[in-house]
Amino acid sequence: MPNPVLVEAVRGALTESRHRGAVAVVDAAGTSVLALGDVERPVYPRSAVKALQALVLMESGAADRFGFTDEELAIACASHAGEPGHITTVTRMLRRAGLAADALECGPHWPLHQPSALALARSGATAAPIHNNCSGKHAGFLCSACAMGATHQGYGAPSHPVQRAVQATLENLTGCRLDEDRRAVDNCSVPTWAIPLNDLALAFARFGTGKGLPAPRAKAALRLRAACAAAPWHVGGTGRFCTEVMRRLGARVFAKSGAEGVLCGALPEQGLGLAIKCDDGAGRAGQVMMAAVVARLLPLDAEERDFLARFVRPTLHDWNGAAVGELKPTELLSGA
Amino acid sequence: MPNPVLVEAVRGALTESRHRGAVAVVDAAGTSVLALGDVERPVYPRSAVKALQALVLMESGAADRFGFTDEELAIACASHAGEPGHITTVTRMLRRAGLAADALECGPHWPLHQPSALALARSGATAAPIHNNCSGKHAGFLCSACAMGATHQGYGAPSHPVQRAVQATLENLTGCRLDEDRRAVDNCSVPTWAIPLNDLALAFARFGTGKGLPAPRAKAALRLRAACAAAPWHVGGTGRFCTEVMRRLGARVFAKSGAEGVLCGALPEQGLGLAIKCDDGAGRAGQVMMAAVVARLLPLDAEERDFLARFVRPTLHDWNGAAVGELKPTELLSGA
Repeated sequence: MPNPVLVEAVRGALTESRHRGAVAVVDAAGTSVLALGDVERPVYPRSAVKALQALVLMESGAADRFGFTDEELAIACASHAGEPGHITTVTRMLRRAGLAADALECGPHWPLHQPSALALARSGATAAPIHNNCSGKHAGFLCSACAMGATHQGYGAPSHPVQRAVQATLENLTGCRLDEDRRAVDNCSVPTWAIPLNDLALAFARFGTGKGLPAPRAKAALRLRAACAAAPWHVGGTGRFCTEVMRRLGARVFAKSGAEGVLCGALPEQGLGLAIKCDDGAGRAGQVMMAAVVARLLPLDAEERDFLARFVRPTLHDWNGAAVGELKPTELLSGA
Repeated sequence: MPNPVLVEAVRGALTESRHRGAVAVVDAAGTSVLALGDVERPVYPRSAVKALQALVLMESGAADRFGFTDEELAIACASHAGEPGHITTVTRMLRRAGLAADALECGPHWPLHQPSALALARSGATAAPIHNNCSGKHAGFLCSACAMGATHQGYGAPSHPVQRAVQATLENLTGCRLDEDRRAVDNCSVPTWAIPLNDLALAFARFGTGKGLPAPRAKAALRLRAACAAAPWHVGGTGRFCTEVMRRLGARVFAKSGAEGVLCGALPEQGLGLAIKCDDGAGRAGQVMMAAVVARLLPLDAEERDFLARFVRPTLHDWNGAAVGELKPTELLSGA
């Protein structure tokens, strides 16, 4: 049975495009609170689990040893937009561990933030691995390797101690065994393991509450969530979904996007973890799904609801700035 | 009943994302040769019908009066990438009609061709309407208005003589009545009318063969197809799907992409018209659908088949250039 249509793109009087997907919301005991579509199908979480990967940065002792600030911890959990402030923070992180940008093995791409990409070009420079949206996570891997006393070269290989620690951490939080046949290569050349949405949601319920985790891991999760809430611009960038939601709603929401329409998050006060996959991989629809689920489950005042409506039901504009359509959640998704 | 899955994105051992859609292939008599999914559902064709919109440029007398070359006719049918050569051609087109770039009402965006966007930024310039991928079509509208003796201001309004002529032309080719409730605004601020895929495919069977069209319209269609086959770079740009396919396969294929996963085309030697919609609006999957349909229906030699395989089954790379996955047609689509 196909997953249900959760988001529609409307133009004029008609639905122009349709996005199917699945949504899992569970508590830290694994009890399902909301399940739309197939929540047992394994999904590569991609960048949506960067905060879980960053637990290794905390537990390796690197965060304490190098004295990382909120901004540095937040960017380790980030898909940043490559704005100048992001580059400064990643550079500082690497320097604390005695490393330079050439240690990054994520590959180069131009900053996602278009004005920053254009400014970089105007300056005569070109795209480098540090501009890769994953460079903060990779800086975290590098610092973890240093703290573990492991060689930092090849830190992205599945057999490297850092990735083994990441794998063990994900296994602990999700309760899944992450065998080799579930492993693929993410676009920044590190492993990504396919995990059912329900288990990803459980991992984030644990990450968001600390329940069911060993005490040091619960403390590390709390520290990372506090860092992201304090420095949300470092988790994404100017105008980006995760940044804007965490800036406005603070520690009440943790939200993180990944490639191919995956988002994970937590509502710590409700004790809930969230995992979302848009079947077709569209980030625009995954964001609507996450915004709609947050609007459905988090108590909001009128102003907060208005704020979130921009993401639940974003207006589509033509190149002259006129409204020509919108994305909107279906009733099944919004619970209307 | 949902449309079938036609394209899968594979990473590692698993399918990561799935694209549903519909495909219509008909001959000029309207006989269906291939129908996958719901081919009766109205779809906004967006830029996929630019060549049909350009018939007005021919029939208004503008093309002859201003002595348009293949390149100029091709760019009137284009979603160009904003490369310097594209800008030169649009500028020349406008100049022939005594107009300047400030007459364009399509709104600005940065060139789709990233190196051109970066070079533009390096030069200290900024994005203007002429860089909009639709500026060639808009130059065509402007020249048509001039040839018709109509004011060129507001040429994108549904009531303007140019858009009325476009509407009548589309009604003739598709056999559909395009009432106001089917009309929406395209991202370049001109009308787009929702039309069932089967009727779009019929329009392109007629465009590709001239059959069923008044003689001047058939002649205009032939001239536009010849122009696109002779100057395919002007229909898209460096490395782009429609350009590459028409460059390699020449006049045997006409192919044109539109926003939100729509593609239309023709196989003139087979007498067939094609119309494709990816349900979720993904261009990456719409391209695979078109490439797979061309591979299925057009006789190809081994080298041509190898060439087309790059688009039927494109490899996905990480930022270090390593292969990490692929897009592939399902058996239903490939007919395997």
